[in-house]
Amino acid sequence: MEFLTGVKKKETMELSEILKDGREGQRIKVNGAVHAVRDMGNVVFVILRKREGLLQCVYEEGAAGFGLSGLKEESTVMAEGILTRNEKAPHGLELSLRGLEILSQPAEALPIPIAKSKLNTSLETKLNLRPISLRNLRERAKFRIQEGVVRGFREFLTEQGFTEIHTPKLGSKGAEGGANIFKLEYFHRPAVLAQSPQFYKQMMVGVFDRVFETGPVFRAEKHNTKRHLNEYTSLDFEMGYIDGFEDIMAMETGVLQRIMKVLTEQYREELELLGVTLPGTEQIPMVRFDEAKRLVSEKYDRPIRNPYDLEPEEEALIGRYFQEEYGADFVFVTHYPSKKRPFYAMDDPETPIFTLSFDCLFRGMEITTGGQRIHDYHALLEKIEKRGMTAEGMESYLSAFRHGMPPHGGLGIGLERLTMKLLGEDNVRETTLFPRDLSRLEP
Amino acid sequence: MEFLTGVKKKETMELSEILKDGREGQRIKVNGAVHAVRDMGNVVFVILRKREGLLQCVYEEGAAGFGLSGLKEESTVMAEGILTRNEKAPHGLELSLRGLEILSQPAEALPIPIAKSKLNTSLETKLNLRPISLRNLRERAKFRIQEGVVRGFREFLTEQGFTEIHTPKLGSKGAEGGANIFKLEYFHRPAVLAQSPQFYKQMMVGVFDRVFETGPVFRAEKHNTKRHLNEYTSLDFEMGYIDGFEDIMAMETGVLQRIMKVLTEQYREELELLGVTLPGTEQIPMVRFDEAKRLVSEKYDRPIRNPYDLEPEEEALIGRYFQEEYGADFVFVTHYPSKKRPFYAMDDPETPIFTLSFDCLFRGMEITTGGQRIHDYHALLEKIEKRGMTAEGMESYLSAFRHGMPPHGGLGIGLERLTMKLLGEDNVRETTLFPRDLSRLEP
Repeated sequence: MEFLTGVKKKETMELSEILKDGREGQRIKVNGAVHAVRDMGNVVFVILRKREGLLQCVYEEGAAGFGLSGLKEESTVMAEGILTRNEKAPHGLELSLRGLEILSQPAEALPIPIAKSKLNTSLETKLNLRPISLRNLRERAKFRIQEGVVRGFREFLTEQGFTEIHTPKLGSKGAEGGANIFKLEYFHRPAVLAQSPQFYKQMMVGVFDRVFETGPVFRAEKHNTKRHLNEYTSLDFEMGYIDGFEDIMAMETGVLQRIMKVLTEQYREELELLGVTLPGTEQIPMVRFDEAKRLVSEKYDRPIRNPYDLEPEEEALIGRYFQEEYGADFVFVTHYPSKKRPFYAMDDPETPIFTLSFDCLFRGMEITTGGQRIHDYHALLEKIEKRGMTAEGMESYLSAFRHGMPPHGGLGIGLERLTMKLLGEDNVRETTLFPRDLSRLEP
Repeated sequence: MEFLTGVKKKETMELSEILKDGREGQRIKVNGAVHAVRDMGNVVFVILRKREGLLQCVYEEGAAGFGLSGLKEESTVMAEGILTRNEKAPHGLELSLRGLEILSQPAEALPIPIAKSKLNTSLETKLNLRPISLRNLRERAKFRIQEGVVRGFREFLTEQGFTEIHTPKLGSKGAEGGANIFKLEYFHRPAVLAQSPQFYKQMMVGVFDRVFETGPVFRAEKHNTKRHLNEYTSLDFEMGYIDGFEDIMAMETGVLQRIMKVLTEQYREELELLGVTLPGTEQIPMVRFDEAKRLVSEKYDRPIRNPYDLEPEEEALIGRYFQEEYGADFVFVTHYPSKKRPFYAMDDPETPIFTLSFDCLFRGMEITTGGQRIHDYHALLEKIEKRGMTAEGMESYLSAFRHGMPPHGGLGIGLERLTMKLLGEDNVRETTLFPRDLSRLEP
């Protein structure tokens, strides 16, 4: 009988192993995709793309002892050679080839020059050719950064006593109710796709006190803007036993601080490749909704058109204001008008037309919506009634409150939008692996 | 201007802080839900449910200096008192109450006695009352274990150089094709819900070499069994530059080893509460599909009815066989028949009616399907044609192969099913937070 006992070390090396001190002069094996072939006449440079970066291989017919004819870009290979110092090569090392085994061959040449440092094709082309365009080092680096964001989020919350949950995306009623919900048939019954894990994460506060989830949410919004998607990854948390909604903002501040720490420590190469300067998260200003409107109206001489709404242009100006006045990249805007928030938002007892809720703006764009929720069963029923809504279909959600819930609140962060602002991109599709919008369901 | 600077330490303590040495005799504050109230006449025990476990509070009218009348189970409270040694209390400590602030009150008493150590209600009732029944300590512990499984999976793969990805669940065509796909309308176009991230994770192997995803998948299967769900969490990975499909099984072995390590080290209390003995993962036997059928047929005197299919009963017998013969909880069954595998599975060049694929059985039930995939563009087209399928709708997927892909393979693990077998449950709904099946869309 044969047994598997775990992962065995391979003969082939990854870049981080190759770059360890003392490898110079060693004969090593390495695999990778042929990112570029540069024939200089007397030598040929074969640039291998590996998951941690590029490795320059140099082919000299005499030294190599084998032919190179017909080697195509995007072949995958197993190369063997001697590590040699070359200050002009990436990382200061190159592989002097002694052998090359072809593992796979492409059937056709690339439609776009992915080996260029920056793809200068349109966003539309990049998205149409996503499986190929992501092979460009800058393009793929964006999603390494995105990974780091999620890691920071999970790592911090786990340390803070949160439990990760997996809630269903198929249900019989949407959390926020109303329009913008994708509908489908589920074994001859009507079903919807979750707009958010809101109801579920609240119910789970009664079980675990603190929960988080990182998963897809679906919005059938007919927006066609640079910042909207119809499916995105939501980083959600919900926490009980709060003393006030400041606790939620404090937790988000901690999350953001950890994300920046993880990126600084573990994604340095990607940050450098993209030329990204991380935002400050030491202290994040907090301003009331009405006050924020007044401040930017005065400073930028812009009349307030609607006292109960924040236009994207106003968000941008609030971002600018706090950057100019306080050097802040993030700002919490608090006390949103009640009528702009869902029924479960807790109204401010002092001025009930406002809520104990907030948005977090990052460089002038909303990346988070959060706040304290109503935890009292009767208060919740009252709010539902006041809104002219029906409790039908919300029985399970309401049962959690009927049988006792601690004071609690939480938030949702749009992962792709946070990544977009972090990287200074101007379209959320740039930082979405496979975007879904009004006109795009493929690839 | 006010600023948020991160998470501040609260006055209230969590259980792990309370249990630190030297706290005895201290006056502390603690919040929690009133799990049970036990009136013994001269004293009243108030059991607080906290996220890390239970804390016994003892109320004596004289010492407390306040009244306790009307305190309801499932109220949430902030309790103050003096920590006192009591060997009969959970963890050997109890809180002698000096003050009690009620944070929230339930509107109605509980429909089921959740404070019992084991809920003896039917599964149906537990599921109907999910937000409440999960407040039972054993019920919630299952999902703490589930969290640990996911952490082990991610932690190990991240160390092994995998990148986490988030792929869309809405698309225009399913990965495996055919039936069992939920359909919906997407802005006047037909769309489907992803049965698996298969196509996307393969495409991303061309970008990152190694990728993983933990997310929901949707199967419109009309099965109503103890082991099927219509929505579940799939733990997927895909890896390039493999030398053979053994590499994938070796990686899964490493994943399973790490999961058991994480559970042992960080979820000890939950394991004890549930009385779980973790399975051995040191060495996992590997047996060919046809050989496995022959072995159990001989040992258990059971005729082979269909040489190309594995019935659930046969899976159970294979599990039993390897438990009896080798003391193994897991077994890899390899070389599944080609006609039982999707088109992208790589056929075994030696006997093309079988594939270089496998299932991992855990205590007699399939928890993983994986294998090597076809990486050559022409071979893939050929297989599609041979199956009488059309390449229409797969253009993006195929483009990755047209422009070069390394040899690769991967797998998908059903999280809920793995948790079920780990905990010795006999219905996957027991280990699904909010199950979706033929008859259940709520809660």
